[in-house]
Amino acid sequence: MIDVSLVREAIKQRKARSESFLGFEYLRFSDDYKDIPRGTAVFQDTIIWGYPHIGRIFMLEKGLKEHFKNPFWVEEKVDGYNVRIFKVRDRVIALSRGGYLCPFTTDRVGDFIDLKFFEENPDLILCAEVAGPDNPYIEESPPFIREDIKFFVFDVMKKNQQTFLKQEEKLSLLERYSLPGVEVFGRFTSGDTEKLKELLLKLNKEKREGVVFKEDSEENRRAKYITSYANLNDIKVTTKNMLQLPPEYYTNRILRLVLFMEEEGINRTEHLYEELGRAFIDGLFDAIEQFKKEHKVYRTFRCKFRNKDNAVALMELLHRTSKHIQVIERELKQEGEFWVLTFDKVFLNMTGLLGHLLSGGLVFD
Amino acid sequence: MIDVSLVREAIKQRKARSESFLGFEYLRFSDDYKDIPRGTAVFQDTIIWGYPHIGRIFMLEKGLKEHFKNPFWVEEKVDGYNVRIFKVRDRVIALSRGGYLCPFTTDRVGDFIDLKFFEENPDLILCAEVAGPDNPYIEESPPFIREDIKFFVFDVMKKNQQTFLKQEEKLSLLERYSLPGVEVFGRFTSGDTEKLKELLLKLNKEKREGVVFKEDSEENRRAKYITSYANLNDIKVTTKNMLQLPPEYYTNRILRLVLFMEEEGINRTEHLYEELGRAFIDGLFDAIEQFKKEHKVYRTFRCKFRNKDNAVALMELLHRTSKHIQVIERELKQEGEFWVLTFDKVFLNMTGLLGHLLSGGLVFD
Repeated sequence: MIDVSLVREAIKQRKARSESFLGFEYLRFSDDYKDIPRGTAVFQDTIIWGYPHIGRIFMLEKGLKEHFKNPFWVEEKVDGYNVRIFKVRDRVIALSRGGYLCPFTTDRVGDFIDLKFFEENPDLILCAEVAGPDNPYIEESPPFIREDIKFFVFDVMKKNQQTFLKQEEKLSLLERYSLPGVEVFGRFTSGDTEKLKELLLKLNKEKREGVVFKEDSEENRRAKYITSYANLNDIKVTTKNMLQLPPEYYTNRILRLVLFMEEEGINRTEHLYEELGRAFIDGLFDAIEQFKKEHKVYRTFRCKFRNKDNAVALMELLHRTSKHIQVIERELKQEGEFWVLTFDKVFLNMTGLLGHLLSGGLVFD
Repeated sequence: MIDVSLVREAIKQRKARSESFLGFEYLRFSDDYKDIPRGTAVFQDTIIWGYPHIGRIFMLEKGLKEHFKNPFWVEEKVDGYNVRIFKVRDRVIALSRGGYLCPFTTDRVGDFIDLKFFEENPDLILCAEVAGPDNPYIEESPPFIREDIKFFVFDVMKKNQQTFLKQEEKLSLLERYSLPGVEVFGRFTSGDTEKLKELLLKLNKEKREGVVFKEDSEENRRAKYITSYANLNDIKVTTKNMLQLPPEYYTNRILRLVLFMEEEGINRTEHLYEELGRAFIDGLFDAIEQFKKEHKVYRTFRCKFRNKDNAVALMELLHRTSKHIQVIERELKQEGEFWVLTFDKVFLNMTGLLGHLLSGGLVFD
């Protein structure tokens, strides 16, 4: 349990606040506070712990030797957004990493997850990545998901507990309820680096994001490792909105890219140089061209709902929580069994800067 | 004059401090404070005003129309470090942009500037760029300077005054004393953008940094404009020490590069993509290789002095003022008429991060 005085102090320091959304009242930790991770949510007497931070290793061989004394499972890391799905009262709902109740994920969970799981296991929480081109949050999508979204369960937690079920228990639950899981590449030891390097090279060629290592031990230590494809792609996808992200976003990814190449023995080819240059330059050209035509820099998102009210609620959530981004609804229309929502995210920082620069403005730096 | 109470307040707020170096005592403004620019120095009753910030335009045509109602001079902007040179008591000394008394520039000024200028004009200050491969401060050097350094005078100020001499007065002084000046491309109006675009394309091909515009009017408005070559080169030269600079350093330059290409009609070629990618990747590979061999990331600097004491004083200044950089002397030896100083700047942030990452360390981001 979280002590009441701790909650009061967190609220006072604006690290936690009460939320009221979709008929639920709960307390949300908007930042890490002492040992409580960001995204932790308290529904009456039930704590849904925030999904913990997982450290990143930049060097496979040394990193695995350094952190894993025991064998570990290697699972795919899918490039999407992280949710926790569980039952409260009589409803199955999904929280985002930051602890917001997500109307979109909540709306669609029944399309991908057998809800019998929650009826029979009301104390369990599924931790999943939601990825695909038709999601309302992130601009990238694994190329192997052609449309809509998919769910990829990677962990199971218990309510009120901060630990995860063991790998075997998780896998048997996934099997029993035919739940979609992330790909599990197997159980390895830190002596298996050659095999793992090969695996990562293969994932890199297949344009997949990377892997998570999960130690098969009581401590259940974890680490993640990302392909150079994913680092390049992160740059490419976000340059149109370069001012929104902390600039370290870019310098970190370039450094990771180089370390991946270094360890994997990938040669510096003209093609690779070109890809990095292109990742930066093309997005900015797009932003400039869009600004010249439409006087704003934006990206259009599209996602579909079973229930129209959830689409309206998503717009409300995005309006309320977007910083430096203006969210503009384009259309909400019925298509077959779905309500299809289309909206723009206008990148206000980039729009403002390009407006200033392209009209001949001065910058003091 | 600067009011005494203002000075007291600036000292209290740590925007100004007294300096004692090379036998001089003076007050140095280490930051902008109210209307007093950073680098302003007060020697007894003489104020040497800091060199003012010059705003940058990103779009030539629109920028010139926006800022210059009158004709303006166009001068080369040389890629070096900015100094102010003047006489105090019986000595000619040089202050850096930040207001430090520079033992290196002070030592060498007589090799490039006819000191009779200061005898006959004790109230004047020469503002110059010092550039070349053998300088102790910056890692880049215009490719047209093959060795040592050169001085490029671009402005003349009067002591105690914040304004500049008029262009004609400046040019006649440069001529009379045969002082080395920056190249003056002529007097233009904002209607001359086609000519200026051609000039900038030419400078870009010649690997020169850019130009400064100086309005031929009482207001003497100014602006600068940089070539894409210089933006690329800034990235290339500094990636080895990527963590030292604010990450906006990189995102700003990429944006400027793209806007330069856009306006100059430079096509996006594979070669250009490749150059940007290479600028980032090669410096980081160098840093990694150097770290693996020598357990530190550093760059070696070399510069030569007339007077050995000045070399010792420079080392003292660098030790005292370098942040996140360890300065290590390698050698100080006589070569003909000169004392040649060689020293390393060890980039502690990059050294620390690579040490952590290459040994398999975790990063939470």
